Amino acid sequence: MNARPTLDELFERRITYPDFEPQARLARLVGLDEQKSRLTKILGLLVNPGGLEEWLRNHHPGAQALLDAVLRRPPLVVLAGDVGSGKTELAETIGDAVARQEKIDITLLPLSLSTRGQGRVGEMTQLLSAAFDYTVAEATRLKSTSGRPRGAVILLVDEADALAQSRETAQMHHEDRAGVNAFIRGIDRIANAKVSAAVLICTNRLGALDPAVKRRAADILAFARPDESQRRAVLSKPLQQLGLSKPQIEAIVATTGPQKDLGYGFTFSDLAQRLLPAIVLDAYPSTPVNPSRALEIAHKMAPTPPFQENAS
Amino acid sequence: MNARPTLDELFERRITYPDFEPQARLARLVGLDEQKSRLTKILGLLVNPGGLEEWLRNHHPGAQALLDAVLRRPPLVVLAGDVGSGKTELAETIGDAVARQEKIDITLLPLSLSTRGQGRVGEMTQLLSAAFDYTVAEATRLKSTSGRPRGAVILLVDEADALAQSRETAQMHHEDRAGVNAFIRGIDRIANAKVSAAVLICTNRLGALDPAVKRRAADILAFARPDESQRRAVLSKPLQQLGLSKPQIEAIVATTGPQKDLGYGFTFSDLAQRLLPAIVLDAYPSTPVNPSRALEIAHKMAPTPPFQENAS
Amino acid sequence: MNARPTLDELFERRITYPDFEPQARLARLVGLDEQKSRLTKILGLLVNPGGLEEWLRNHHPGAQALLDAVLRRPPLVVLAGDVGSGKTELAETIGDAVARQEKIDITLLPLSLSTRGQGRVGEMTQLLSAAFDYTVAEATRLKSTSGRPRGAVILLVDEADALAQSRETAQMHHEDRAGVNAFIRGIDRIANAKVSAAVLICTNRLGALDPAVKRRAADILAFARPDESQRRAVLSKPLQQLGLSKPQIEAIVATTGPQKDLGYGFTFSDLAQRLLPAIVLDAYPSTPVNPSRALEIAHKMAPTPPFQENAS
Amino acid sequence: MNARPTLDELFERRITYPDFEPQARLARLVGLDEQKSRLTKILGLLVNPGGLEEWLRNHHPGAQALLDAVLRRPPLVVLAGDVGSGKTELAETIGDAVARQEKIDITLLPLSLSTRGQGRVGEMTQLLSAAFDYTVAEATRLKSTSGRPRGAVILLVDEADALAQSRETAQMHHEDRAGVNAFIRGIDRIANAKVSAAVLICTNRLGALDPAVKRRAADILAFARPDESQRRAVLSKPLQQLGLSKPQIEAIVATTGPQKDLGYGFTFSDLAQRLLPAIVLDAYPSTPVNPSRALEIAHKMAPTPPFQENAS
Amino acid sequence: MNARPTLDELFERRITYPDFEPQARLARLVGLDEQKSRLTKILGLLVNPGGLEEWLRNHHPGAQALLDAVLRRPPLVVLAGDVGSGKTELAETIGDAVARQEKIDITLLPLSLSTRGQGRVGEMTQLLSAAFDYTVAEATRLKSTSGRPRGAVILLVDEADALAQSRETAQMHHEDRAGVNAFIRGIDRIANAKVSAAVLICTNRLGALDPAVKRRAADILAFARPDESQRRAVLSKPLQQLGLSKPQIEAIVATTGPQKDLGYGFTFSDLAQRLLPAIVLDAYPSTPVNPSRALEIAHKMAPTPPFQENAS
Amino acid sequence: MNARPTLDELFERRITYPDFEPQARLARLVGLDEQKSRLTKILGLLVNPGGLEEWLRNHHPGAQALLDAVLRRPPLVVLAGDVGSGKTELAETIGDAVARQEKIDITLLPLSLSTRGQGRVGEMTQLLSAAFDYTVAEATRLKSTSGRPRGAVILLVDEADALAQSRETAQMHHEDRAGVNAFIRGIDRIANAKVSAAVLICTNRLGALDPAVKRRAADILAFARPDESQRRAVLSKPLQQLGLSKPQIEAIVATTGPQKDLGYGFTFSDLAQRLLPAIVLDAYPSTPVNPSRALEIAHKMAPTPPFQENAS
Repeated sequence: MNARPTLDELFERRITYPDFEPQARLARLVGLDEQKSRLTKILGLLVNPGGLEEWLRNHHPGAQALLDAVLRRPPLVVLAGDVGSGKTELAETIGDAVARQEKIDITLLPLSLSTRGQGRVGEMTQLLSAAFDYTVAEATRLKSTSGRPRGAVILLVDEADALAQSRETAQMHHEDRAGVNAFIRGIDRIANAKVSAAVLICTNRLGALDPAVKRRAADILAFARPDESQRRAVLSKPLQQLGLSKPQIEAIVATTGPQKDLGYGFTFSDLAQRLLPAIVLDAYPSTPVNPSRALEIAHKMAPTPPFQENAS
Repeated sequence: MNARPTLDELFERRITYPDFEPQARLARLVGLDEQKSRLTKILGLLVNPGGLEEWLRNHHPGAQALLDAVLRRPPLVVLAGDVGSGKTELAETIGDAVARQEKIDITLLPLSLSTRGQGRVGEMTQLLSAAFDYTVAEATRLKSTSGRPRGAVILLVDEADALAQSRETAQMHHEDRAGVNAFIRGIDRIANAKVSAAVLICTNRLGALDPAVKRRAADILAFARPDESQRRAVLSKPLQQLGLSKPQIEAIVATTGPQKDLGYGFTFSDLAQRLLPAIVLDAYPSTPVNPSRALEIAHKMAPTPPFQENAS
Repeated sequence: MNARPTLDELFERRITYPDFEPQARLARLVGLDEQKSRLTKILGLLVNPGGLEEWLRNHHPGAQALLDAVLRRPPLVVLAGDVGSGKTELAETIGDAVARQEKIDITLLPLSLSTRGQGRVGEMTQLLSAAFDYTVAEATRLKSTSGRPRGAVILLVDEADALAQSRETAQMHHEDRAGVNAFIRGIDRIANAKVSAAVLICTNRLGALDPAVKRRAADILAFARPDESQRRAVLSKPLQQLGLSKPQIEAIVATTGPQKDLGYGFTFSDLAQRLLPAIVLDAYPSTPVNPSRALEIAHKMAPTPPFQENAS
Repeated sequence: MNARPTLDELFERRITYPDFEPQARLARLVGLDEQKSRLTKILGLLVNPGGLEEWLRNHHPGAQALLDAVLRRPPLVVLAGDVGSGKTELAETIGDAVARQEKIDITLLPLSLSTRGQGRVGEMTQLLSAAFDYTVAEATRLKSTSGRPRGAVILLVDEADALAQSRETAQMHHEDRAGVNAFIRGIDRIANAKVSAAVLICTNRLGALDPAVKRRAADILAFARPDESQRRAVLSKPLQQLGLSKPQIEAIVATTGPQKDLGYGFTFSDLAQRLLPAIVLDAYPSTPVNPSRALEIAHKMAPTPPFQENAS
Repeated sequence: MNARPTLDELFERRITYPDFEPQARLARLVGLDEQKSRLTKILGLLVNPGGLEEWLRNHHPGAQALLDAVLRRPPLVVLAGDVGSGKTELAETIGDAVARQEKIDITLLPLSLSTRGQGRVGEMTQLLSAAFDYTVAEATRLKSTSGRPRGAVILLVDEADALAQSRETAQMHHEDRAGVNAFIRGIDRIANAKVSAAVLICTNRLGALDPAVKRRAADILAFARPDESQRRAVLSKPLQQLGLSKPQIEAIVATTGPQKDLGYGFTFSDLAQRLLPAIVLDAYPSTPVNPSRALEIAHKMAPTPPFQENAS
Repeated sequence: MNARPTLDELFERRITYPDFEPQARLARLVGLDEQKSRLTKILGLLVNPGGLEEWLRNHHPGAQALLDAVLRRPPLVVLAGDVGSGKTELAETIGDAVARQEKIDITLLPLSLSTRGQGRVGEMTQLLSAAFDYTVAEATRLKSTSGRPRGAVILLVDEADALAQSRETAQMHHEDRAGVNAFIRGIDRIANAKVSAAVLICTNRLGALDPAVKRRAADILAFARPDESQRRAVLSKPLQQLGLSKPQIEAIVATTGPQKDLGYGFTFSDLAQRLLPAIVLDAYPSTPVNPSRALEIAHKMAPTPPFQENAS
């Protein structure tokens, strides 16, 4: 453990925007316009803080004091919501929108699950510190003499609750608390370095995030399961391609909504990764998809239960 | 612990299909046709992804986008259900069906109980990593230049809840959490290696599986205790051989069903491994089986209670 | 701990049957005929599996398929019941009945309490493994070229719940879980070695046994506190010898039954090891036993409370 | 910790009977005749088992089978009861009665609190083993060629629950469990060595004793708070000496009984070590004891609350 | 960890007063006059204890005994209140008021989060001790021969509950308890050194502070969420600058107050760091702020929930 | 930790009586006459046991047997009561009264908080043992050939519950249990050494003290919050000096009593260390104390809540 952790240990992969694939995936994310807009603006200001200054000068010439209030916030955004609600998908693709808007390259570094370590004392702290070190180093290289950075870095922390669990819970283990502290210090380090880097946190247990982490968040974006129009947007095209009629599709859209006895409906993932493949595989390899059978499959499939905040 | 774990430590044994014994056992598994069919298709696509492409081209020419939705899913299937419901039996024999259908050899590697280790820090992680390493290596050797693999490997994880217990439980030990992480990384490794290998997970505590594991499952197959016709299928032949009449057999089929005060009936194992031997041994060595005594034994025997999800 | 554990560490003592003392003790075990019979048959088949084949051939010529169903079960029997219900006594003496019936020598190896170890990491696992190693080695020496073994070995695990506690309990310690695993592997090892060895498990907390252990049990024999006729059988002779009349003995038999406010009566041990000595010592050294005083002592003595399954 | 523990670490002190001081203290123990008698007989038989044989021959010539039932019991007696109920006092003085009756020397070895150790792994086990080693060694030296031992050793374990806490409690620490095991092995070692040594256990939490310990007890003697006549016996003489009249003494005897709102009264210790000194010190140094003031002090003093079995 | 911790590990930064920036920030802290006044007096007496003596001589010549009662109190003040209630802001800026009043330099040392350490045994203790060492050393350098110190040092402990958590909680870890002890000793050390140094503690869990810490506090200042006039003071100027009218501002002031179903309103931070930036970013970059949209944003934003004292 | 702990680690300071300062403080302790008297007598007998003998001879010539009952008690007194009830103040000053009465020097050694150690295994035990070693050594030096000691030593353990917490709590840590044992052994050591040393224990959690510690206490003195006359005694003089009239003082005495909704009033410390300084600082530096403002301050100040016995 004394050796410096390698990049492969720290990050799952490295994604650079703009690119076609994330552009397409981002386009497919229906019904999340509010979240897209807020996230794009916050990330855009990292690269181009001058934009806000100019806007204030133009529209609210007396309000320059507000510039600081907006820009001084730590470069941290929390994406919170149920499993399969699209928050990870948005976090992995929003960089493309910002890259195109600001006409620079953006790099996404998804923190690896390995950074949770294997329980050795001090290990999680060391891995997290190394991940933040690397993020700051990358972003520092993007500084330019002109003042406007040549690019930006996004550090993505998925399933963040495990890393940044609230110290409100009395039974918290020292090792975990050390991890929370390392995490907080990392965010403060990025803020102090004044580099064009941001941290995105995805969690399905907002209540479990440490208050000191939440307090630093410039914004907390909420995600929910898809409503009727969002389900329709996801299902219409593929089901049409499989030969279903409008009313048949509508029946499936309805049946995947919140169910009376459960109180919750299908997640985005349930629709795309479980329902559609199940309809396909049921017919494969001998017959084409039978629409009434497709509806039957949707009926019988249970939506993924929401993550239990208070499970213990 | 520094030495690399041996194969014997990692896997209980090694089974190669096609073979007569699993073929016979699979044939005896009555009432699980739905599960057989879904599992065979998913495993078949591992070896022969071209089949799906062809099927789409033939039946749904406009729906090629769905190809990815089906094939991109991680090669993980969860078999969930009560003790003695046949899930392990199916997992241990389904390879034969796939091997015969796809006309290739398939190897089953049942993860050894030893991989749970003995509580040494880092041990479970190391053992699990080694098991996944071996699985990937085996499957890599099966790649062929033609693109179609020469065979496939199935990694079987029985009683998986112990290894992949949910991180929702607050009291989880670091060592266990490290195990869950190693497990998730292993599945991702197989997926990324794009080899013809799959992971089958059997559990009687679906609720205890980590959400990150469940989320990766291409399919979750549910297993239940045998219904009346399944119990009849299991019992008829042997009881007939022991000289019982139709009505006597029916009486035993009825008496082994869900019992009013308990709410549950006999499991598949209860019928085959406890009831039938008890009837035999009761008569042995002095007299032949007495049908009315057989019924009495069935009456007095208590079915195995279901595994308590929430026991603590 | 690196040295191999000695036999004295592993087993409390070594008992060889047939012998007069266990024969007498077994004879004194009244009211347990059902358990005696089932246990004798299972153990007898270990040594003489041919007997069952022959019986099937004679009585159920078409049912040879059942041979495997009976003989393939792991050589594990669970004796479950309240404290002082005679299960340990039966386990320690049944070998004599089998030895006489099969006309061979049988060795009983009672697992020592020491195998629970002293809490050192890996210790319980090592001790249990060594105990199973020794059992398999002993039984292997008994194989003969004729096929019929020259003897059999019984490994007795008293108070087994401590060793094979259910992994259902969430708080289970790693060291304990390792012990359960070592135990399961040991049973599987004996089964795979196809030697004439069996494992008997006594427990007063059946519910606390790990499901993986219970699932392997060929039979689970239930033991209860003595009923009226069993108490009479235990008490009549000694109380007569101490000069009590029939009605006086009956009064003591009645008073030691389940008591209204408690719901439970005396155990076998309460009668033999606490009540009778108390009557004797009360009179000793100055006077002979006074019958009415004996009844008074029985009245005032409280039966041992049942073991609390759910105590925590 | 590698050095062998010294005697001073193992035992608090060493008491040899007969001696005047314990004789006087035993005489002062009023109202415990039943417990005295039973304990004396059990300890007496250790030294003089021939006595029981002779008694049986004289009074119950047909009942020789009962000899074993009495003598085979492990040399362990549990003294259970509330704080201040006299059990420790009896355990520390009963040796004198046995020594005088059997006309031999008896040695009492009170196990030191230190044997609970300081939490180092294996420490409690080592200390307990050493204590039992020493006890057995001492008793072995007392064997004589004539068969009748030249003396006896009593190992006293006060506040035994801490050492022999029930394994029923799920959360038990490994180190503690190891201690229970060492304790059980120690008792079995004394029994097997067939030396004239016995173990006395005092506890105010009988329910917390491990069942395996309780099962080995030849007798469990119950102690309670003093009833009215016992309180009178304790208080009469000293209060008379302090000048109180009969009715005044009776008033104090009544007031120290179970109190309506509490449900419990004064313990033996409350009377002797708290009430009497308080009356004396209140008057000291200037005036003689004022009887009405003494009654007032008794009124205002609260009896020690019973030990809470279930406190956690 | 053997090397002495560096200043950077111990303190987040070092602030020296008087300075313009804290002066401005302190001026902006509306509605906290009571707390400002009490804190200024306590800190002022550290530097100028003679002031109190003089005051007593002038106004209450007979009451010199009270001098000690005031000055002998440990130099510790607790600032307790909800998240975002301004306590940290006051703690970070009050030094400026004292510096100007007493015409000396004051240094603020905010204890770093790192002092919580990473869970190594003894680490928190060492870090805390070092921080107090440094504080005492700094303050000692400020002593002057004239008796009146040349300056003062304030040690600021934000989120103090983690460091000084009550030992009332039974499950407290040894490492944490050691930290509390080190903290208490540190405060006593400053008191005993009679230097011009004080410790300010900010906490949102007053109930979680150890009683031994609370007992030492010279004063406990309570902070609450802003009332209507405080919210108006915070919002009026910036909202006016953004073009909102008086009634529009009043509507936002009202809507950010305690909400019927929640029972709590916006914190100071909610107003300044979340609401105002959200209004700005919503309009940015294309349009000026739309007043009715601003009100809508305030309506939809949820105030930060209070820290749960009893969360576990 | 191998080096012997220094005196500074073991004791907070060293106080020698008689001295003017404790004499004055003791005199100021109003309303604790009962506790003063009992404590003085018990400590006096340590130095002068002959006094009791003489008193018995004079007043109760037949009651010499009671001498032992009083003098044999361990030299341990528990001072139990709420925070701020004066128990620590009494413990720190009573030595002066005894020293003057017996005309000898008395030394108080207040056990340092450091003796709780920092969680290293065996550390608390070592520190406590060293503290008792030192106490016994000091007291031994005070023995004289005449029999009457030349002085006495008091070991003061404030906030003793942390050190001597009840082993009734099941979750107790080994390290803590070892501490309790070391403490008990220490008390026994002083008793056995027959030196003129006593241990005073202050606790606000009497129920949390280990029964084995409580059982050894010669006396348990109870302390409560001040009643009306005690509050008047504390407040009258200083408030008069600050210019308040009799009725104004009475109003403050009333307002600091138990408050209807809380059920408890001000502690001694609340009055002396919080209320009086608050009244002074409110007026300082510009005006004299305004009586009606003083009453207002008392009204608004909340009394310290009692320590929660059962907090967890």
